[in-house]
Amino acid sequence: MDSETTIAPVTAEKPIVISVDCMGGDQGPSAVIAGLFICADAHSDIHFLAHGDEAQLRPLLAKRRDLIARITLVHAPRVVTMLDKPSQVMRHGEGTSMWSTIDSLKSGSAVVAVSCGNTGALMAVSMIRLRKIPGVSRPAIACFWPSQNPSGFNVMLDVGADIKADAKDLMQYAIMGSSYARNALGLTRPRVGILNVGTEEHKGSAELKLAQDLLQANATLGDYEYIGFVEGSDIPSDRVDVIVTDGFTGNIALKTGEGTARLVSDFLRSTLASTIWAKLGYLLARRAFGRLHKKMDPRSVNGGVFLGLNGTVVKSHGGADETGVAAAIGLAIRLARAGFLERLSARIASVNSAGHGAAGNTA
Amino acid sequence: MDSETTIAPVTAEKPIVISVDCMGGDQGPSAVIAGLFICADAHSDIHFLAHGDEAQLRPLLAKRRDLIARITLVHAPRVVTMLDKPSQVMRHGEGTSMWSTIDSLKSGSAVVAVSCGNTGALMAVSMIRLRKIPGVSRPAIACFWPSQNPSGFNVMLDVGADIKADAKDLMQYAIMGSSYARNALGLTRPRVGILNVGTEEHKGSAELKLAQDLLQANATLGDYEYIGFVEGSDIPSDRVDVIVTDGFTGNIALKTGEGTARLVSDFLRSTLASTIWAKLGYLLARRAFGRLHKKMDPRSVNGGVFLGLNGTVVKSHGGADETGVAAAIGLAIRLARAGFLERLSARIASVNSAGHGAAGNTA
Repeated sequence: MDSETTIAPVTAEKPIVISVDCMGGDQGPSAVIAGLFICADAHSDIHFLAHGDEAQLRPLLAKRRDLIARITLVHAPRVVTMLDKPSQVMRHGEGTSMWSTIDSLKSGSAVVAVSCGNTGALMAVSMIRLRKIPGVSRPAIACFWPSQNPSGFNVMLDVGADIKADAKDLMQYAIMGSSYARNALGLTRPRVGILNVGTEEHKGSAELKLAQDLLQANATLGDYEYIGFVEGSDIPSDRVDVIVTDGFTGNIALKTGEGTARLVSDFLRSTLASTIWAKLGYLLARRAFGRLHKKMDPRSVNGGVFLGLNGTVVKSHGGADETGVAAAIGLAIRLARAGFLERLSARIASVNSAGHGAAGNTA
Repeated sequence: MDSETTIAPVTAEKPIVISVDCMGGDQGPSAVIAGLFICADAHSDIHFLAHGDEAQLRPLLAKRRDLIARITLVHAPRVVTMLDKPSQVMRHGEGTSMWSTIDSLKSGSAVVAVSCGNTGALMAVSMIRLRKIPGVSRPAIACFWPSQNPSGFNVMLDVGADIKADAKDLMQYAIMGSSYARNALGLTRPRVGILNVGTEEHKGSAELKLAQDLLQANATLGDYEYIGFVEGSDIPSDRVDVIVTDGFTGNIALKTGEGTARLVSDFLRSTLASTIWAKLGYLLARRAFGRLHKKMDPRSVNGGVFLGLNGTVVKSHGGADETGVAAAIGLAIRLARAGFLERLSARIASVNSAGHGAAGNTA
């Protein structure tokens, strides 16, 4: 509880460098560069590496000569497309902007990486280049979920790094997810729940009952409060801060939530255009609707984070525009400033060495 | 395609009887009886069995002496509560209103049963009293999901009968779910998809790839169109009519959708109360919002249906009020009129005997 100071925070002496993959998004490099400019304007102490094809990036970067000292172009001639298979990219990905972006973490030239590219390929390249943190058996992708909590968000993981997770994996997700919630949402002692088909202790598979015991046993070391099983309806609630589940279930839940929110907003849009009174009503309430739109805007919560690797990688939505890209890079900057990777690694080490003289709580 | 006439439709000569469990809902027997009255008024040819404690039901039923000829009270002194364990109810459930409601199907005194009680107990009692349709290995619960399709709904199963399903189970869910979509939604040849973490053929577990082949191979016999893998975001879309998945994933998706819709409507409500202009706007658009509310109202789509048993059981939401109960009983009446159980059983028999001189398509 007292050893937050044992980790040297990243200070202003050595600037923070964020590694950005400028290719591979659906909207092309111009959207990524525009998002990068937004963050560069907002954070004058941050440096950036812009990875991609020099011929395409040079003219885009030339638009803001005032930022030239803080944005370094790293030429990578090839691009990973959304159709490329992860296994192919893992073997033959050298020379792509994605590979180059991740390698900057490996070499230590940057602290956090951001990419809008193919999720499976990005996970594969990150795995092979960065390797897992000692003691982690399955890395996970964590996402934010709009919620009734004061911060406005909950954290859910895994939402798609792997389709399976055993009890021990779920316990590690609890540790990684609560560390992430502390560093990204500023929570002190996150409440963690396991996603299940009911809250009663006898519900669900034998594996989930085993996970129940493990999460309970490691709550103090992981510095979280274990609240038991939660249901799908609890994901956006204020009952819980961190929801752990396997990547198959988490991915389905995430996309079901997205699809449902889209359905409701489509219905709302057609309702507000259905009569002249409704149209007038919309005009009067327009500013309030604008705030609602902003609150629910998936672009503003853009960025899944890969947890469990020797490097922090933020996965932006493939279709992100400049606002979405800026949100993802903003998240990367927040994690870099918090020294998140060092804290997370120390936390995992302390849990793993439990019983053999545990280290302090650091993440 | 030509043998729909081989099944004798239920005709007006012998009235249709619906068996209703009047106890066990969160709002007590008065809400159930009120819902029953709504349906009795709307369908003057239908008879009802009202199961429950005579002392409680008699005064409630006495309010509508004009319906006395069509509503028969069946005394059952005991009640299954939401806390009772399914295994207990299965062994010691005799004398409860739930048991009595299901037994009316077994004895042939009614064709479809409706209950607001404990889902697990209802499934357990239904299993043990009605038994599975020959050839079905795992029964399923199917639900409606608000969607962009012309009917306004898609069908998803299993949403919680069992936590597991293998490839053969998923194939049977496709057959049962498309038969249900034909009879409850009036679709001719439903489009069926398997829920997965991506639409590409290489995604997901080996079991899902096996299911892919089985669903494809049985599409003609099942009279559905197999469209491949679908994602969570497709569940409310117009790409698909019937979504099949295991009961763990389906239950999580269902509750995640409910939770997300609730979150959006809570945010919408507070938005519309946030400023004087927003309040005025809401007043002008009030009728349009009323229609939206009705469209999204979970009470109007109330009723999961147990498929794969020798009897049709509609599970109403535990918290249903009279509107919700009326929707569930209305669904039961629709299925009874369609002769759904006979059609479904014939369809399953025809698929099972495929290769040995298949029967005609009947459901």
